Amino acid sequence: MSRKRTGKKEATVKTVGEFGLLKRLRAKAPPLPPHVLLGIGDDASIMQPSPGLTLVATVDVLVEGKDFHWQWCPPEAIGQKGLTVSLSDVGAMGAVPRYALVALGLPPRMPLHRVDGLYRGIWETAEAAGVAVVGGDLSEAPCLVLSVTLIGEGKVDRLVRRSGGKVGESIWVTGPLGRAAAGLRALQAGYRLEQSSAKGKQRKNISPKTRKAIRETIQAQLYPVARYREGKVLAEAGFATAMIDLSDGLASDLSRLAEESGVGARIYADRIPVDPATQQVAQLLGLDPLRLALGGGEDFELLFTSGAHPATIHEALARSGFAKPHLIGEVLPAGEGLSLAGPRGGQKPLQGGFEHFR
Amino acid sequence: MSRKRTGKKEATVKTVGEFGLLKRLRAKAPPLPPHVLLGIGDDASIMQPSPGLTLVATVDVLVEGKDFHWQWCPPEAIGQKGLTVSLSDVGAMGAVPRYALVALGLPPRMPLHRVDGLYRGIWETAEAAGVAVVGGDLSEAPCLVLSVTLIGEGKVDRLVRRSGGKVGESIWVTGPLGRAAAGLRALQAGYRLEQSSAKGKQRKNISPKTRKAIRETIQAQLYPVARYREGKVLAEAGFATAMIDLSDGLASDLSRLAEESGVGARIYADRIPVDPATQQVAQLLGLDPLRLALGGGEDFELLFTSGAHPATIHEALARSGFAKPHLIGEVLPAGEGLSLAGPRGGQKPLQGGFEHFR
Repeated sequence: MSRKRTGKKEATVKTVGEFGLLKRLRAKAPPLPPHVLLGIGDDASIMQPSPGLTLVATVDVLVEGKDFHWQWCPPEAIGQKGLTVSLSDVGAMGAVPRYALVALGLPPRMPLHRVDGLYRGIWETAEAAGVAVVGGDLSEAPCLVLSVTLIGEGKVDRLVRRSGGKVGESIWVTGPLGRAAAGLRALQAGYRLEQSSAKGKQRKNISPKTRKAIRETIQAQLYPVARYREGKVLAEAGFATAMIDLSDGLASDLSRLAEESGVGARIYADRIPVDPATQQVAQLLGLDPLRLALGGGEDFELLFTSGAHPATIHEALARSGFAKPHLIGEVLPAGEGLSLAGPRGGQKPLQGGFEHFR
Repeated sequence: MSRKRTGKKEATVKTVGEFGLLKRLRAKAPPLPPHVLLGIGDDASIMQPSPGLTLVATVDVLVEGKDFHWQWCPPEAIGQKGLTVSLSDVGAMGAVPRYALVALGLPPRMPLHRVDGLYRGIWETAEAAGVAVVGGDLSEAPCLVLSVTLIGEGKVDRLVRRSGGKVGESIWVTGPLGRAAAGLRALQAGYRLEQSSAKGKQRKNISPKTRKAIRETIQAQLYPVARYREGKVLAEAGFATAMIDLSDGLASDLSRLAEESGVGARIYADRIPVDPATQQVAQLLGLDPLRLALGGGEDFELLFTSGAHPATIHEALARSGFAKPHLIGEVLPAGEGLSLAGPRGGQKPLQGGFEHFR
């Protein structure tokens, strides 16, 4: 986006064609670990699974104009997010992410530097997670469609499903909520990461503290981080009885976990972690921070149920260098439904969250 | 396509929303085999790999308007083709296909019966191949984008790469070529499967034999069959030294195999199998059948190199109930390049085939 314009016509996907693009990507791809016996360039890739472990697999799609906008999203961020969505899913099982396959639908007119940036984002995120990008497909499409399949491994008796939550257990989240949603609203209002100042809103006076808050929330929206390492610790210690990643919003994702577990739940408004940056951006834009936290989505924190003592959970995560998780509510019998308890004791049904096609 | 119109407004993807559609699909999905411990409905699926085997994985994308057209393609055919492309890739490794993940980008206005038909095609093809559909994702997109990831298994020392072809070996294909391309050209010319008669070309006199040929080639285009069973036999017997599936056309796919193997090749025009149906349709439409066979693509037959005696290969495939493969040429040193030898001894460079974005 900060790319300088030159007189020369920029190379596009069409300039190099499918095979040229494939060669380009193969030449730039990072080296593969020894358990990948064959990477991109054949009919399929070959991987040596770890003995005694089971496989987990997930696929996620990002579509231009729906899940991201070129207007404010650098290609690297799209690549990072494309893989992060799947890393978050594998993390919510308590598994270790291993292999990714990247299917890309591209408009022929797309500048090559965007494809390069997208892959850079994927490769950097993959490398940080110990994931090998082993395969892919390139296809022509009317807009960018990025589909990432992620294969992971885990001990079969330690993997955590959505269905294991039991009445009486506590409900936890691994980190602050609503940040990504606040960032999205800031972007929609015309704020940008590189400026951290108003754009379109001429020279409105914004304090350095608010600027920092805008930057932090936009950062959370554009460059989300998946909690797969935390997920593994929670799973291996046997703390999490049910787990889901917060991709569509706390209200929506909690209702899915509760449905699969056959339980109800109550969460407490004043325990839902909303950090100062989210609160400041909400105030600036005239939004309710609690609604951002409940309905916003894309925070990619983990939501889990546990019967373990809070101190034990805190210690285990702290020992691995992770932030303190937040106890936000409790599992109830199914008949109690899902409710949000207010700070003054009242309670109402829990609602909100993102759904496609709606 | 033959669906009757009723006065009632038809239900679309938007009518039921993402979660409604997910529920609908989960309710209709076939039961999972015991080695799938967890299917669709959690953050990721869980599978028990077969001890001692390695994994293979591939992903392929089909895009509306590029890879298929609603105009002549029933939803079931799109589902079948979406999985077949990947089955063909896994087959070209000599592996056994096991698990599929289906990522779907859908326009909200798409009628539900199309999504149902698409999944029916996927499930039926999967069931016939012993493949379990273990996961998926639904997303909003401007047109239908179907991305299928297929995971298979095989013995590490039996899997066949593109790179193993050696000078002096023979070049084989498992079946007739150009059929799918002839079918596509027939569709483009206005012929249809259900009519097997001219449409748009009013009452042109077509013989029953030609009608049958049109039907057969359109069938090959709309409902292609992957040769994964043949691939496994060829791999396990150790016959195939290099293998690739014919998805982009013989000329293009042979050149990739030759490049990866670091060899050249000569194929003989009069040995390339073109069946009578393809010849008749080519004649009807004024096309060169050999060009259809060389450049057409989507036949999903296997191309392989082998040093084994032809009779041994014939016997092995016949014993498993498969058709006789065709010996079409020989592997040469890299310096010889790729050539097509004519029936009267002349030869010319091999060219043609499909490439995206071009």
